[in-house]
Amino acid sequence: MADSPNCDLKSLSPLQLFERVTEQGEKVRALKAGKAPKDEIDAAVRMLLSLKLSYKTATGQDYQAGLPPRDLALINNGTTKEEDEDFVDPWTVQTSNAKGVDYDKLIVRFGSSKIDTDLINRIERATGQKPHRFLRRGIFFSHRDMDQILDAYENKKSFYLYTGRGPSSQAMHVGHLIPFIFTKWLQEVFDVPLVIQLTDDEKYLWKDLTTEKAYEYAKENAKDIIACGFDVNKTFIFSDLDYLGTSTGFYKNIVKVQKHVTFNQVKGIFGFTDSDCIGKISFPAIQAAPSFSSSFPQIFNGKENIQCLIPCAIDQDPYFRMTRDVAPRIGQPKPALLHSVFFPALQGAQTKMSASDPNSSIFLTDTPKQIKTKINKHAFSGGRDTIEEHRKYGGNCDVDVSFMYLTFFLEDDDRLEQLKQAYTSGELLTGELKKVLIETLQPLIAAHQERRKQVTDEMVKQFMTPRKLAFEF
Amino acid sequence: MADSPNCDLKSLSPLQLFERVTEQGEKVRALKAGKAPKDEIDAAVRMLLSLKLSYKTATGQDYQAGLPPRDLALINNGTTKEEDEDFVDPWTVQTSNAKGVDYDKLIVRFGSSKIDTDLINRIERATGQKPHRFLRRGIFFSHRDMDQILDAYENKKSFYLYTGRGPSSQAMHVGHLIPFIFTKWLQEVFDVPLVIQLTDDEKYLWKDLTTEKAYEYAKENAKDIIACGFDVNKTFIFSDLDYLGTSTGFYKNIVKVQKHVTFNQVKGIFGFTDSDCIGKISFPAIQAAPSFSSSFPQIFNGKENIQCLIPCAIDQDPYFRMTRDVAPRIGQPKPALLHSVFFPALQGAQTKMSASDPNSSIFLTDTPKQIKTKINKHAFSGGRDTIEEHRKYGGNCDVDVSFMYLTFFLEDDDRLEQLKQAYTSGELLTGELKKVLIETLQPLIAAHQERRKQVTDEMVKQFMTPRKLAFEF
Repeated sequence: MADSPNCDLKSLSPLQLFERVTEQGEKVRALKAGKAPKDEIDAAVRMLLSLKLSYKTATGQDYQAGLPPRDLALINNGTTKEEDEDFVDPWTVQTSNAKGVDYDKLIVRFGSSKIDTDLINRIERATGQKPHRFLRRGIFFSHRDMDQILDAYENKKSFYLYTGRGPSSQAMHVGHLIPFIFTKWLQEVFDVPLVIQLTDDEKYLWKDLTTEKAYEYAKENAKDIIACGFDVNKTFIFSDLDYLGTSTGFYKNIVKVQKHVTFNQVKGIFGFTDSDCIGKISFPAIQAAPSFSSSFPQIFNGKENIQCLIPCAIDQDPYFRMTRDVAPRIGQPKPALLHSVFFPALQGAQTKMSASDPNSSIFLTDTPKQIKTKINKHAFSGGRDTIEEHRKYGGNCDVDVSFMYLTFFLEDDDRLEQLKQAYTSGELLTGELKKVLIETLQPLIAAHQERRKQVTDEMVKQFMTPRKLAFEF
Repeated sequence: MADSPNCDLKSLSPLQLFERVTEQGEKVRALKAGKAPKDEIDAAVRMLLSLKLSYKTATGQDYQAGLPPRDLALINNGTTKEEDEDFVDPWTVQTSNAKGVDYDKLIVRFGSSKIDTDLINRIERATGQKPHRFLRRGIFFSHRDMDQILDAYENKKSFYLYTGRGPSSQAMHVGHLIPFIFTKWLQEVFDVPLVIQLTDDEKYLWKDLTTEKAYEYAKENAKDIIACGFDVNKTFIFSDLDYLGTSTGFYKNIVKVQKHVTFNQVKGIFGFTDSDCIGKISFPAIQAAPSFSSSFPQIFNGKENIQCLIPCAIDQDPYFRMTRDVAPRIGQPKPALLHSVFFPALQGAQTKMSASDPNSSIFLTDTPKQIKTKINKHAFSGGRDTIEEHRKYGGNCDVDVSFMYLTFFLEDDDRLEQLKQAYTSGELLTGELKKVLIETLQPLIAAHQERRKQVTDEMVKQFMTPRKLAFEF
């Protein structure tokens, strides 16, 4: 290390600076404990103070032992004021705004790119298909490197899709379908292989569950996923607890990622603490590894460098920021991403729909009557307090959960626009809007239940068996 | 939590107290950040101070954020003075004493039990065999629960053996053979299955190696291990990188251990820091998992509760202290252990033989000439400076490395005793003692090399293929 600590400090990230301060602090303690000469100790203390100053300059915060910079993306952008910020990580989504999370701000904070009209048009040209309503309506709103996927696709270079689910209980809700509905569309229009990870190990680590129960949930959830209509010849669904013990490639990629991520990094990205179990601390590598085609030698014929595209809700982005950071260091291509907004809770868009709160969720197992009751009783309304006021001033679609759900599930753009105008003008009442939603969701969910009934254990086994798919690599 | 923090604090371990202080500190920070009422903050601060006091009372040290109690075994025994202590962990063995580590003190510090004459006699009765020279001479000197293994064995209940090696380079030295020579004897006298773990993943994580290279070393080292004479029908050798991807049981046990060990614990046991990669942090679970028979469903027919006995050098004990702590919490029996002393470096017993220092080691690939030169040139002598002095005062076997090596490798007890007396009396000169060692080691190593030549890649493959062994479970 050079004598002057400032020579190269400006090029260091806040986390690197944090680590330098920590190391220097340990050095000072060691020198003092070892009763080193006074001038040596003094020099080490001077360097420590100088490093702390650099840390404060870079982050706007005092160095605190054991507390690395919480959110790198945030600090890298120089905005450390968190009070008015939405909170988004893989476990919590919270905002004070009834319209929901400010997604434009999130794009800036996360350093991703907006899915703009140009990109949507390009997808349409490349596939020759009308863009999915989730693209047309900004439900998939952000991306990383989707342009590279299209460059390669236009040059006849294939890629694969990777998405997943944490199987925490038998009942999935309608919000859980969003990534699968969209992924199915992507698979159809691009005609590429798809891998779906069921993180039963994650659920075992985070919840009060046995491994057997977590694996059972994984197989139950696989039925709901298969019921979305995936093609068994093009799709591999896997449970971590199962596939890790049957793949020659998966663990090797996990351990490679684990070698290139420090505890300080996962602390900064995911907020882990010293009291967390080592399983949680190393888990991010297990969600990262399917981003590399060598995790699936049976599908990609052992090829290492097939590009991956991950459609997911934006709260999963921290895992893949980490993955993209590691990828070049282990000689792998960075996965590209397509990010969706959250599916709002019935009570309002301040938080996302959560299966652990039955009142916030419409489950895929709900009867038509339950669907009707839940929407009528719980769906937060942007309407006025009285019919008179509503007729006079109109409703507010920006905060109305029923209208939000219709943007997800009503295919007809013209009808949606008519409903918006009628509700905003006051012509359409809250009860009437809810009725449209109920009549949209009831047949969708009934059809899903019908398809799910057709999914046998044998079909689940087929989807979950490691095998070659209908593609040559 | 009760209002008074002191009600149950006495029953907490130093680590649990450490975690309580850390949590309370976080709570205080959160209250202050959230501008909570003053009396609420004051109460939380009072509890924090009280917890810190309890921590100091229990450990004799001030609480320091981010620095959990370093060595639990040490602190639990109330001896926190480390200056005169030998240092022993899986990576470093260091003592200032030329006789080597004080193993009686180590037994107290680690909380294990001495292998005494009663236990050795009991092993002799149970097996009907003369105890191995490593037992007769205190080379395997410490154990955990060996009496339980014998209780069960006498009641016709079987167990299995587990040992291992970290394959860091192609060349193994004679010290590496100690656990294998002893394990082979145990397997023969008890007639039980044996699993041998090659931690190529560990070496990938700790060294500048590719996964391919680490796996190659594993296969090369397997040849030296097989050359010790193990029976392919009773022995399964596995590389982690390979077996993790082919076993339905191994990963499940790994993730179970990972759920029940916190970062604070591995920090205390292994000295990991926040700058360590998450692979190192979670690795201890991978060395722990083979202690449970369900990691080998192919051998134990899926049975969960077959008891495990681990012969290893004492520096590996931290892994298995951790394993024994976790075992009952995941419904598994605690593995029993037999601990050996370290194999001393040629230069003296202050440190162990290390393959990374060629001058400290006699390799299994050394020629007779190399063996002779190394011993003559480097083996630390307990003899006197001149022949006259030696004849007059005699040599010191307690610090003489050649004599130490003879205790490991010379089978004949009477001959060894004669050598000791002759050397101590001054009758036998250093050069003459070295000659005995050279003539003992040269044929041993030549025979090993001969057997190793017979080990084909096909045999390695057989040993490393997961399969049923010649035992019914």
